[in-house]
Amino acid sequence: MTGYALYYWPMVQGRGEFLRLALEDAGAAYRDVARGANGMARLERFMGRYARAPFAPPYLVHGKRVIGQTTNILLYLGPRLGLAPKNEADQLWIHQLNLTIADWLVEAHDVHHPIGSGLYYEEQKREAKRRAADFLAHRLPKFLGYFEDRLAKNPARSGWLSGRLASTADLSLFQMVAGLRYAFPRAMAKRERKAPRIVELQDRVAARRGVAAYLASPRRIPFNAYGIFRHYPELDR
Amino acid sequence: MTGYALYYWPMVQGRGEFLRLALEDAGAAYRDVARGANGMARLERFMGRYARAPFAPPYLVHGKRVIGQTTNILLYLGPRLGLAPKNEADQLWIHQLNLTIADWLVEAHDVHHPIGSGLYYEEQKREAKRRAADFLAHRLPKFLGYFEDRLAKNPARSGWLSGRLASTADLSLFQMVAGLRYAFPRAMAKRERKAPRIVELQDRVAARRGVAAYLASPRRIPFNAYGIFRHYPELDR
Repeated sequence: MTGYALYYWPMVQGRGEFLRLALEDAGAAYRDVARGANGMARLERFMGRYARAPFAPPYLVHGKRVIGQTTNILLYLGPRLGLAPKNEADQLWIHQLNLTIADWLVEAHDVHHPIGSGLYYEEQKREAKRRAADFLAHRLPKFLGYFEDRLAKNPARSGWLSGRLASTADLSLFQMVAGLRYAFPRAMAKRERKAPRIVELQDRVAARRGVAAYLASPRRIPFNAYGIFRHYPELDR
Repeated sequence: MTGYALYYWPMVQGRGEFLRLALEDAGAAYRDVARGANGMARLERFMGRYARAPFAPPYLVHGKRVIGQTTNILLYLGPRLGLAPKNEADQLWIHQLNLTIADWLVEAHDVHHPIGSGLYYEEQKREAKRRAADFLAHRLPKFLGYFEDRLAKNPARSGWLSGRLASTADLSLFQMVAGLRYAFPRAMAKRERKAPRIVELQDRVAARRGVAAYLASPRRIPFNAYGIFRHYPELDR
């Protein structure tokens, strides 16, 4: 089987970043197809007319496989990259954690786009302020508390979410928190005080050999005003 | 292994309905725990302090397994209930379809709760009208078109989404469309004209022995004003 081909928008971290982090952490051979020549056109390759076309990027091509949905791709990659054990029970638990992070991600996105992703932020700024207030007051503490609890209650006491070793869920939690720190620096500085295990996980993931090399490289696209995580100071109260 | 125990809110179809449909279609032995005596208290059993606690209901208990996230539970149940083949490629594809339906479901919910699920509809009615317009004009046709295409392009030409046999994804698409018909009867009557394969799938699922018996039974909670799908005529334009 040849290496992995990742198909995702070339100018943002977005959902593709959860896959880039897993591939980079594992030192896997992969191509980030749409960041090469003629990238946007190539992104269309398995969309639309292809029988098992994904609804949207990202998708992964591996041999004859074309796999869509970020969490589904992580489910596929986990045991292959050494980022999930081989047994079903642990894989389902790690997948469950990734799905919960994916729910959280939608909510973080919808803070700045509560009315529709086809509209500009400026067209829904008033609504975004209301949604941001609700997200920061209720949803952010709930999600942080949930993951802090899971780290605390992992019987392996490893500092990772599941068992003794790091998994795709730890990398995804890292990415989620990195994005929230970028988007909501004020709110996160305050909330993180109650989530010391998440803060520690952040540093441990960033220090992993593959991740550290990746974050320092030009392959890591900076956070920007087009991605899922956006910093609008008026929303960070 | 004893039967399945489903933990979910007792008064709505909600996300639990995707699981009830799979279990009922297969004629599986299961208990709908929170609909029994002292149900709401029992719903808490595996939340919070439990190490692998789900973030929210629904969750499924099967032997020693406690599995959260609707799509994750369907992934687990699929091959066990005869609603997914044994091979990984088809399971990933069916899971991908279920994940896409789950994304669609969030959008359908957020039409009436664009600002926050902790607020009443009346507190976000103005924003809901804007979001509904965007959802019905852009998102609904996009999702319907995507699934209509998948039905058309299934090489097995079976009328089901994957291969020759019905899967959890077909049952989930049925539930999604049933909910949309309840919430947006005007918009759906118009849009369905362009999705004849989805309309046909609707009738075929409803006629399946297990599903037909379930839909006619008191176990099927009617759609209501507390669920994910809600009928507010002012949003159905």
